[in-house]
Amino acid sequence: MPTLRIALAQVNATVGDLAGNADKVLEWTMRAAEQGARLVVFPEMMLTGYPVEDLALRRSFVDASIATLQALATDLGAEGLGGVAVVVGYLDRRAGQQPRVGVPAGSPLDAAAVLHGGRIAITSAKHHLPNYGVFDEFRYFVPGDTLPVFRMLAEDGEPVDVSVAICEDLWQEGGPVTVTRTAGAELLVVPNASPYERDKDDVRLELCRRRAREAGAVLAYANLVGGQDELVFDGDSIIVSPDGDLLARGPQFEEALVMADLDLSAADPGRPAGRRTVDAADGTAMTIERIELPALPAPESESALAAPMLSPRLSDLAEIYGALQLGVRDYVHKNGFGSVILALSGGIDSALTATIAVDALGADRVHVVLMPSPYSSDHSVSDAEDLVERQGVRARIVPIKPLMDSFAASIDLHGLAAENLQARIRGMILMGLSNEEGHLVLTTGNKSELATGYSTLYGDSAGGFGPIKDVPKTTVWDLARWRNRQAAERGETPPIPENSISKPPSAELSPGQLDSDSLPDYFVLDPLLDDYVEQDKGAAELVAAGYDPELVERVIRLVDRSEYKRRQYPPGPKISAKNFGRDRRLPITSRWREPRCD
Amino acid sequence: MPTLRIALAQVNATVGDLAGNADKVLEWTMRAAEQGARLVVFPEMMLTGYPVEDLALRRSFVDASIATLQALATDLGAEGLGGVAVVVGYLDRRAGQQPRVGVPAGSPLDAAAVLHGGRIAITSAKHHLPNYGVFDEFRYFVPGDTLPVFRMLAEDGEPVDVSVAICEDLWQEGGPVTVTRTAGAELLVVPNASPYERDKDDVRLELCRRRAREAGAVLAYANLVGGQDELVFDGDSIIVSPDGDLLARGPQFEEALVMADLDLSAADPGRPAGRRTVDAADGTAMTIERIELPALPAPESESALAAPMLSPRLSDLAEIYGALQLGVRDYVHKNGFGSVILALSGGIDSALTATIAVDALGADRVHVVLMPSPYSSDHSVSDAEDLVERQGVRARIVPIKPLMDSFAASIDLHGLAAENLQARIRGMILMGLSNEEGHLVLTTGNKSELATGYSTLYGDSAGGFGPIKDVPKTTVWDLARWRNRQAAERGETPPIPENSISKPPSAELSPGQLDSDSLPDYFVLDPLLDDYVEQDKGAAELVAAGYDPELVERVIRLVDRSEYKRRQYPPGPKISAKNFGRDRRLPITSRWREPRCD
Repeated sequence: MPTLRIALAQVNATVGDLAGNADKVLEWTMRAAEQGARLVVFPEMMLTGYPVEDLALRRSFVDASIATLQALATDLGAEGLGGVAVVVGYLDRRAGQQPRVGVPAGSPLDAAAVLHGGRIAITSAKHHLPNYGVFDEFRYFVPGDTLPVFRMLAEDGEPVDVSVAICEDLWQEGGPVTVTRTAGAELLVVPNASPYERDKDDVRLELCRRRAREAGAVLAYANLVGGQDELVFDGDSIIVSPDGDLLARGPQFEEALVMADLDLSAADPGRPAGRRTVDAADGTAMTIERIELPALPAPESESALAAPMLSPRLSDLAEIYGALQLGVRDYVHKNGFGSVILALSGGIDSALTATIAVDALGADRVHVVLMPSPYSSDHSVSDAEDLVERQGVRARIVPIKPLMDSFAASIDLHGLAAENLQARIRGMILMGLSNEEGHLVLTTGNKSELATGYSTLYGDSAGGFGPIKDVPKTTVWDLARWRNRQAAERGETPPIPENSISKPPSAELSPGQLDSDSLPDYFVLDPLLDDYVEQDKGAAELVAAGYDPELVERVIRLVDRSEYKRRQYPPGPKISAKNFGRDRRLPITSRWREPRCD
Repeated sequence: MPTLRIALAQVNATVGDLAGNADKVLEWTMRAAEQGARLVVFPEMMLTGYPVEDLALRRSFVDASIATLQALATDLGAEGLGGVAVVVGYLDRRAGQQPRVGVPAGSPLDAAAVLHGGRIAITSAKHHLPNYGVFDEFRYFVPGDTLPVFRMLAEDGEPVDVSVAICEDLWQEGGPVTVTRTAGAELLVVPNASPYERDKDDVRLELCRRRAREAGAVLAYANLVGGQDELVFDGDSIIVSPDGDLLARGPQFEEALVMADLDLSAADPGRPAGRRTVDAADGTAMTIERIELPALPAPESESALAAPMLSPRLSDLAEIYGALQLGVRDYVHKNGFGSVILALSGGIDSALTATIAVDALGADRVHVVLMPSPYSSDHSVSDAEDLVERQGVRARIVPIKPLMDSFAASIDLHGLAAENLQARIRGMILMGLSNEEGHLVLTTGNKSELATGYSTLYGDSAGGFGPIKDVPKTTVWDLARWRNRQAAERGETPPIPENSISKPPSAELSPGQLDSDSLPDYFVLDPLLDDYVEQDKGAAELVAAGYDPELVERVIRLVDRSEYKRRQYPPGPKISAKNFGRDRRLPITSRWREPRCD
């Protein structure tokens, strides 16, 4: 039985950085080759990063992607890596004449190429295009209709057949998975750019198991790592046997080379190179395009592989925290910032946000501003100072009373208008310091606030990135406790003051104010928000599910009328099945009211 | 030759207001019937408004649309309007078992129904789904595959066959237009929700002419009117003969009943009711579903129709101004605001914005705030006061020097940070007055500023709606001059002070500052922005088109690095082929730099 050493390179590509991403392919292929890999699989759209959005429609960008792929193939050959087969995602275009009605020549493709022998051996494109949730791929791409199968030599010189599918091709029925079985390939490799959300790792593993069985092949799933605006790609690359047994698995939220020695059946010598068209079992036909890679010597390498990588799973909270941390780190670094600044109120939201930022960037890159008002409690400053001391972030105090007085002399504001003013003064101070000193402003609002509109536009919502915007308030507390426990277990000082976790939440914009004056208890609110926002249940369904009708009506009203605020909120890492952003697109102008149910 | 009196009801539906929209159908059908119409055509998605975005995915909303349609059919019958055939757009779902692979039962449909005799006579759904520009219809809808053909009686009791297509069905090759010819229908009616953009009326007319010829039928195109977030629907309903001759045309930006007496051939009596499947010439098959409406007496009416409506065309500038005015009016009214507030600087952007607001809402609903700083020129206040006097808007002055001093005492800001601070103080004052008094804040930035990032986040960009955000600076001047000329021609006081139009533009955030210190001349900048932003040309193409390479590089850099600001900008009416919003979706995090061309 031929043995093939494979490496899944789950690396962190940057959108638009074609040269940097190509260098990464070169560097990681070299590392994989040193460890004896004959086949290295990189993520979907590796050369361009993912998602590139409307850049896919720009001719110069597609040209650059194609040119970069060609140069990369040459460079791999020149570096003595021609004997390694490298599968890499990139942006291509449909060549030649208009191939069929509705598909213009020149339309972009979400493509993958096999590089070998210093050449582009074969290319293909994603067959199933996702167009739901955060995905808009019908806007950009035309579907691929070819399954590439390349024959390569395993360790002992025996041939094996490898096919390539891309990301969504695994999530839909029929298409490349089915055709891989028809083609009789022994191994199906799948470049992916699959964003993180809670519990998705379990879903992914089950999916891989099922599709490996359907394909009758070993399935090797290589996923992207890194933050890109609202999305965090978590890696979690997977290899499963044709029986669905897990053979190897990568870590989440970090780059890694997931290596394994695969025992494969030898390729059927009776299948000649060439093309044939078959039923894809999804209402379309696909062409199997079969090639044979030339026999080339593999680079020298260590011959032993201790064991396939099998990274342990993270707990639910560790996973969320990992996503937030990577999301912040990549947004800051990839956008060229050296530091962040945020308001520290003594409350739990800003305490958790500061802690994530410190874990992502280091304490010396995190600047905090304490901005007490006459309505701030004593503990608001002392709890904030406690955190500053625990974590060593760079702190300053700017009391806002003089500014409040100054505004009061200019315009006469009352009630909510006066409360909002305080939040906006704080936002202005942060933005001023950001402009002056170059920090990125982090907003500290959580998902429960964002959902209900419990925030001030251009006030606490001002900033460039919102690390916890997709985290419900109750999960904010859970994460804070989890992070403190982690520290305690490692014998470190828990970073978050206990009082910030345990005290009742308050915006402190008027004397003695508590969140519970305006909002239901968060432990009641959060499950209802989840059902309304993420599950898209209507009022009748919510009441049928046992929620109080009056509460349902009140919360729906709060959520619906806050759409305009969310539209102007900065991006932040998605961790849920439906975040506020590209995942949930509702009109601002809408007279729709869920029918009353009482 | 049978004569059929048709009415296209180009009315202003509101998203989510199912009851209000149904009332509108009843009311306008009654008016059409009084004038003798036998057939009334309403726009696409009339009952729900358009676009409903993710509301299409909510079960309760689809249920409500279907129930509203049923109630409307009954109400039309009860009001004695059963003898009129009413074509109305609504949101439906695919019934029954999963109809084919990839189309779940229960998937939403962009549907149209023919109501007659107090019943829903027949329904169908849009066949071609747009998924480009501002449209995301593959996200929401499954395509229709049926062409409904209903036989109804014309004036003299002779039968005519009428088919129904929906909006995009006209813009793509094949499908309902082709099948209308196959079916031999005499009249093709098309409900639309086609948003305004510059010069689109010419394109639409040519399209209607071409499709009428292809269908071999009279083509009656009924379009929505009204503003919905960033979109403005302009009406411009059209009827053309099978030879492509224009028979009737509605006005733009106002509700109207576009009536005409159509001379049609009599229906072929040899075509029986029933279903048959035919080639749609677009790679799919469609089913012709043919029914016969029962012969019912038409309501009593005036019998004479003077002449078909043939509204005169607007000039380019009148058209743009009409779109902006309607966009502002509907955003304000449909979101429940009674008034607006904006900063009046004496410059042209705020002067034009105020004028549009006055034209849209009336002077007593427009509040302006003059907020001079030590860097404001003398003319900034005097020009603003001049406008206040000309238009009678409600004005107040809030000098910002005390607030600048107060901030200076709290934090030490220089250069750009200090300039931004002034803009943010003004933004805060507007937001404070908005919160206190309930006005919607209008932002006054133009497209050239938005493109180059020449604005302050949470400063001059603060607000709920940006009336001129899609208007390039040079067009701002053109519109101001046009509006003044209009006034002069009507013997009214020109609303905009001449000095606001003629003086060199300045943000006045530092002594003697001019826009030209930071930006190229707007007459050079605007065409380049159009080519880069709207035409999506790369650097090499721009240089090849004759732009200075250094200018190209500088402007591209400005546009690319301002994406984060645009993401937090409020909505505003789209008037161009590509606005900043859903039309142009680019990542914030991107290292892509157009290749240098020098």
